[in-house]
Amino acid sequence: MKHGGDLTQAMAEFGGAADEWLDLSTGINPWPYPIRKLPDSAWQRLPARADEQALLAAARATYRVPEGAGIVAAGGTQALIQLLPRLAKDGAVAVVGPTYNEHSAAWGDAGHAIAAIGDLAELPAHATHAVIVNPNNPDGRIVDPHRLAEIAAVLQRRGGWLVVDEAFADVEAGISAIASCGRLPIVVLRSFGKFYGLAGVRLGFAISTPDIANSIRTLLGPWAVSGPALHVGTKALKDAPWAMQTRIQLAAQAIKLDGILQDAGFAVIGGTSLYRLVRHREALAVHRKLAQKRIWCRSFDWSNELLRFGLPEDAKALDRLAAALAP
Amino acid sequence: MKHGGDLTQAMAEFGGAADEWLDLSTGINPWPYPIRKLPDSAWQRLPARADEQALLAAARATYRVPEGAGIVAAGGTQALIQLLPRLAKDGAVAVVGPTYNEHSAAWGDAGHAIAAIGDLAELPAHATHAVIVNPNNPDGRIVDPHRLAEIAAVLQRRGGWLVVDEAFADVEAGISAIASCGRLPIVVLRSFGKFYGLAGVRLGFAISTPDIANSIRTLLGPWAVSGPALHVGTKALKDAPWAMQTRIQLAAQAIKLDGILQDAGFAVIGGTSLYRLVRHREALAVHRKLAQKRIWCRSFDWSNELLRFGLPEDAKALDRLAAALAP
Repeated sequence: MKHGGDLTQAMAEFGGAADEWLDLSTGINPWPYPIRKLPDSAWQRLPARADEQALLAAARATYRVPEGAGIVAAGGTQALIQLLPRLAKDGAVAVVGPTYNEHSAAWGDAGHAIAAIGDLAELPAHATHAVIVNPNNPDGRIVDPHRLAEIAAVLQRRGGWLVVDEAFADVEAGISAIASCGRLPIVVLRSFGKFYGLAGVRLGFAISTPDIANSIRTLLGPWAVSGPALHVGTKALKDAPWAMQTRIQLAAQAIKLDGILQDAGFAVIGGTSLYRLVRHREALAVHRKLAQKRIWCRSFDWSNELLRFGLPEDAKALDRLAAALAP
Repeated sequence: MKHGGDLTQAMAEFGGAADEWLDLSTGINPWPYPIRKLPDSAWQRLPARADEQALLAAARATYRVPEGAGIVAAGGTQALIQLLPRLAKDGAVAVVGPTYNEHSAAWGDAGHAIAAIGDLAELPAHATHAVIVNPNNPDGRIVDPHRLAEIAAVLQRRGGWLVVDEAFADVEAGISAIASCGRLPIVVLRSFGKFYGLAGVRLGFAISTPDIANSIRTLLGPWAVSGPALHVGTKALKDAPWAMQTRIQLAAQAIKLDGILQDAGFAVIGGTSLYRLVRHREALAVHRKLAQKRIWCRSFDWSNELLRFGLPEDAKALDRLAAALAP
C-alpha cells in the first residue's frame, strides 16, 4: 500500500463499493470546510493574477509568513515535492525517516543520492540538502524550529536547502519553521487539503526565500492553481474561527479514537490529531480483519507491527470501528 | 499584454470592475459545459486511481487515441508545456510562429536553444525538436497530419520530439496528429478548458508514445488532477451530443462576429471558431477605444495591426461590440 486515501486497492482486494467502506487510511480532516456554490467565473475563466494575489495574502496571514520571505501556490503540495529536487543544486539529500515516501522518490528520480537518516543529529557531512516532515508522518515526531534553523544554517554553508514538510502543522501551534524562511534556505511546504478536509481541491504552498520562491514560480508557470481552489482556499484560510474550532474538534475526536484503539490492545505510540500511529504484534492480521469488514486503515511496508488510523467522522463510525476490533 | 483572459491588467489601466467588462481577450468558449453539484467526495477525498482511469478512458474515446499510444492528464496544458522541455533530450527546438508564447518561454527556461521559424518547411538541420500549435493561435493556420508525421519521422532520426499543441483542435475535425502518436515521437497536447468553456478547472492531456507518456506521468507525480476536474472532465468528455451542438453554435457565432468586425473596417485574416484574427491599420487605437468602453480584446507585442477577438456570448454582447466599434 503506497498511499492512504485511495480505496481502489481496498476494493480490488476485498470487494465492496466505495460507499460501503469506512476509510481511515488518510490523515485528512473528516469535517471539511464547507463548500458553498462557487461563482461561475471560478470554473469558466482563467485564474486571474488578482485572485492569486488574494490567496497568497490570506496564506501569508494565516501561516504568519514574515515580510522578507516569498510564498508560491501550487496545485497541491505533491507538485512542489516533484519539482524541488529539480531546482536544488546537485548533491546528496538526507531524508529523516521513516516518513512520507514521496520525498525520497522525487529526489531519487531527479538524480540526487539519498541518505536515509533517523534523526537530524545524524546529518552526514556529504549531504547538501535535508528533508524533514514536521510533525512527522506517521509518528508525529516534532523538531523544534530553533533546531531546524541551526540545521538550515549548516546546509546554507554547503549551498543546500532544508525542506520542511509541514503538511500536518496546522494542528500543532508554534512548531513552524516559517519564521526563519526569509533569512535561511528553508523551504516550508504547507498543505491545504489535509486540515481543511478538501484533499480533492489540490492546493499547497511553498514558503522560502524570495529567490527560491521565484524559481519555483517560474517552473510552475502560470495558472498552476485552479479557479475553485483559489476561491475556496482564500475563503477558508481567512476563517480563523473555523480553524480554531476545528483544532479543538480534531483533538477531542483523536482522544476518543485513542480510547477505542487502546481498548483493542493497541499501544498508541504517536501521531497528530489528524492521525494516530499504533503498535500491535498482530497489526497485519488486524488490518486484514478490518478490511474484511470494509474498514481501511494504513499499513507500512517497513513494519509488521504498525498501523495508522485517521479520524472516524462521527459516533457511528467510532462505534463501527470499536465493534470491528472486538475479539 | 502577455496573455488573454486576465482582466487584472485591463482594470489597472482603464478602471472599472470585472463585471463591467466584456472580455473578448480569450479563445474560451463562452457557453461552458454545465456544472452540476459535485459529489462531496470530489472535493474531500484524494483523487482515486479509478477516477483517473475513468477520465483517461473518456479522453481516449473522444480524442480517438490509438491503442498503441499513451495518455496522461495534468492540471492544465500549461503544466505539460512547463515540463516537456525538461524531459526532452538536449538540443535546439524549432518553434513555428508567431504563436502562443509559452512554448518558447518554457524551452528557453530549460536551456534549449530556440529557432523561431515561420513554417515547418524551414526546419533547420540543427533542430532536435519542433513545436507547432495546430490550429495555430492566433492565425488559425492548419498543417495536415500527414505533413506532421513526416516531420516527426525526421525528428525521430535526430532523437527528438514533435510537440503538437492542439489546444483549439476540438473545433477542427480531422486535423489531429493523435493517430500517429503510438508510432512516432509526437507529443500532442489537448486542452479541456477552452472548448468546454471551463478554463478555471485546469485540465489538459498529453498523448504520445507509451514511454514518453510514462516519463511525463512520473514527473507529474500522483494527484496532478483535482477531484472537481476529474469529475467534470469525465462527464463532459463523454457528452458527444453537447460537443457536436457546441461546434455548430461556435461556428454560427464566429460568422456573426466576423460580420461586425468587417463592418467596422477590419479584414478577418484567420482564426478558428473560438477566436478571430483581424487586421486594421489603426489596431492599437481601436484596442484603446474599446478598452475605454470596457471591452477587452487581445493585442500582440509583435504587430501593430493585428487584434484577436473571442466570441461574444449573446446578441447583447454582439450589439455592444458593434456599437463600441461604430465611428
